[in-house]
Amino acid sequence: MSSKQWRVGIAGLGTVGGGLVKFLAERPDFAPAGGRAVVTAVCARSKATNRGFDVSGYRWFNDPVALASDPDVDIFVELMGGAGGPAKAAVEAALALGKPVVTANKALIAEHGAALAVLAEANNAPLLFEAAVMGGTPAVKMLREAMVGDDVNAVAGILNGTCNYILTEMEAASRPFADVLREAQQLGYAEADPTTDVGGFDAAHKITILAALAFNCAPNYAAAEIEGIDQVELLDIKLAHDLGYRIRLVASATLSEAGVSVRVHPTLAPLRHPLAETAGALNALFIEGRRIGRIFIQGPGAGEGPTAAACAADIADVMTGAVRPVFQSPATTLKPFAPVDAAHSVGKAYLRLLVKDQPGVIAAVSETLAEAGVSIDSFLQKPVEDAGGVPIVLTTHATPESVLMEAVRRIEALPVVLERPRMLRIARV
Amino acid sequence: MSSKQWRVGIAGLGTVGGGLVKFLAERPDFAPAGGRAVVTAVCARSKATNRGFDVSGYRWFNDPVALASDPDVDIFVELMGGAGGPAKAAVEAALALGKPVVTANKALIAEHGAALAVLAEANNAPLLFEAAVMGGTPAVKMLREAMVGDDVNAVAGILNGTCNYILTEMEAASRPFADVLREAQQLGYAEADPTTDVGGFDAAHKITILAALAFNCAPNYAAAEIEGIDQVELLDIKLAHDLGYRIRLVASATLSEAGVSVRVHPTLAPLRHPLAETAGALNALFIEGRRIGRIFIQGPGAGEGPTAAACAADIADVMTGAVRPVFQSPATTLKPFAPVDAAHSVGKAYLRLLVKDQPGVIAAVSETLAEAGVSIDSFLQKPVEDAGGVPIVLTTHATPESVLMEAVRRIEALPVVLERPRMLRIARV
Repeated sequence: MSSKQWRVGIAGLGTVGGGLVKFLAERPDFAPAGGRAVVTAVCARSKATNRGFDVSGYRWFNDPVALASDPDVDIFVELMGGAGGPAKAAVEAALALGKPVVTANKALIAEHGAALAVLAEANNAPLLFEAAVMGGTPAVKMLREAMVGDDVNAVAGILNGTCNYILTEMEAASRPFADVLREAQQLGYAEADPTTDVGGFDAAHKITILAALAFNCAPNYAAAEIEGIDQVELLDIKLAHDLGYRIRLVASATLSEAGVSVRVHPTLAPLRHPLAETAGALNALFIEGRRIGRIFIQGPGAGEGPTAAACAADIADVMTGAVRPVFQSPATTLKPFAPVDAAHSVGKAYLRLLVKDQPGVIAAVSETLAEAGVSIDSFLQKPVEDAGGVPIVLTTHATPESVLMEAVRRIEALPVVLERPRMLRIARV
Repeated sequence: MSSKQWRVGIAGLGTVGGGLVKFLAERPDFAPAGGRAVVTAVCARSKATNRGFDVSGYRWFNDPVALASDPDVDIFVELMGGAGGPAKAAVEAALALGKPVVTANKALIAEHGAALAVLAEANNAPLLFEAAVMGGTPAVKMLREAMVGDDVNAVAGILNGTCNYILTEMEAASRPFADVLREAQQLGYAEADPTTDVGGFDAAHKITILAALAFNCAPNYAAAEIEGIDQVELLDIKLAHDLGYRIRLVASATLSEAGVSVRVHPTLAPLRHPLAETAGALNALFIEGRRIGRIFIQGPGAGEGPTAAACAADIADVMTGAVRPVFQSPATTLKPFAPVDAAHSVGKAYLRLLVKDQPGVIAAVSETLAEAGVSIDSFLQKPVEDAGGVPIVLTTHATPESVLMEAVRRIEALPVVLERPRMLRIARV
């Protein structure tokens, strides 16, 4: 085993970068593959920021590209974030020099992973990104390394802790979305601009990466269908619960003969389902393979400790000298996955309607659904709480999405229906 | 990336070996790290056995040591089983020649892993055993590779699918242990000699390996405390359920300042606990680390598909050329973990007593417990079903095991107590 000392340069000293600096400082014996990893150089926007540790012991860079290119840096760790700009430029600079790169940047890998993998492999430089998905829970390693002896046909799970925290709090405290979001922002669980998280884009970046690893394709972020949790109402959380479900933001990727479907949307999971029981900021993932069957993993998806530990594991992997494609197969052979039209996907749905309080309404709704080819699985009418109309909810049997959409259009057009119906998908169990 | 062809020799053509041969035959493009793996030689007790595939295309060996030593075999895969004998001799022969070894043999690694790791590292030969624990669910890779950036302080889970199947069936069908075991044997889910499984020894082998990986020690199978499920009565399953628990065979390893505690015993898990909800032949594991927090993984622990896939992943790892210790640290630096006396472990317990149907019995029992220093958490007396006595069950608050044992001795000595009390531990949630 090598006794080489690896000089680590870290660009970005936020939560993850700071955690990694502290970890490697606490563990001068960190030598999981023989060699030792030591942070020697760092880069951030401002040297003066109080980070809870002293940066004076490290060489300071203002320019991440200069850090990445520095001949005295053996491993470049990119923890700045952002799909393009300086993060991309710095990663490219390191890879072009044949320098191993470790990053937690999901946007970068989801949007530019294919090109970066080609660059990495052309220069024999490892490009590792365990911390980009599920923080310290090793989803990337599982799909890239442990599942190579299987044909994975689906991955699905909860990949954004902020959304899961908000949904959990909405239910537990019976508070609307905007309230809980505001509190999460005050507590530091949500960003000042929450769009990336609550809009589903962060989860979409992550599932795009997992889909590429699972199905042996290039990442294809543009093909992801994305709906966030910002339209989830407290009323739906309560009604879903009455029907035996809990709402979760589920990111899924499914392989079929027609191609790959990558989707992020609020989803009803049965109360006893492991995804329904994944509470707070936890993440969870199902991996379904033809040989192995179903594997479920659950763990913390963010935070200083878990994410820094994931980066440290990637650094260890670099030190082993392993040569392996960035995704499953050599990057030059990868094709972006062929997206499947979501209209063809088949599943159960939840529909919430607000109707006039008058005889014959249920008959009108159920006839319309029947005519459209949608059959009802369960039905719930709540007592009227105000004069504005009667809420009714129903769940359907498995139905093609295009049929559901047409049925919703027809229901919306009924004179007895007072507002646009709310449709949510129900998880395949 | 290398385009080398790796010639794989497989000793043992049972479920796992047969599955691996079929997998590599089906996937001539299996090149996860550039090189290709091709089975060229096999070895088993009898060439004539009908295995559902043709062995005539492979070089046949009667002696596994000869196969392991053959210069035309690049990777030796040991799937014969057994802690010593030919399996050990063949693995040693391969490692002594610097040849990578992949094995699913938990007994071999748990009992001789430390010495084999020294031999492997002295000869720069990888020794990989993903399939030894949890079949296709990559517990070994997670602990060895993904958790190197953390300090793991506990692992606990369900590691024997046969026991979990039996316990699940006993509860679901309300049938006693012996009945369900007999049926499991007829269905091929349990061995003709079931001792290794139902006695807890298989789970103990597995948790011994995980403890070594988790805590950076040499495996120390002799230090494991082992109790199987053969004494679990249907009555306890029912009473536990009435109290809100389900009985599972839990294997756990816990690190404390005093050392390492490795234990396998029937355990009550709360009904909504993920271990209680792990049903049938599934396996499940919690990993608890100081930085990452808690990770939970669940998946199939046995079977042709999952276990062969795990071996294939190990073969892929060999092909990457990664150089990494067999356990966490170089084998020459590993010490067997220092076992902690189980008497010092603290936990809640379930006690079932059979007492005379007469006044004052509950007072006598509860006084005896109080005097011994055990406090009661819940108490349940069932209606008398026959004249043989009254069953009462109770759960305790967390109590040192030595105190519990003394309390049980005192209760057993009471004249109103008709049989030896049954004690089961309750899982730490």
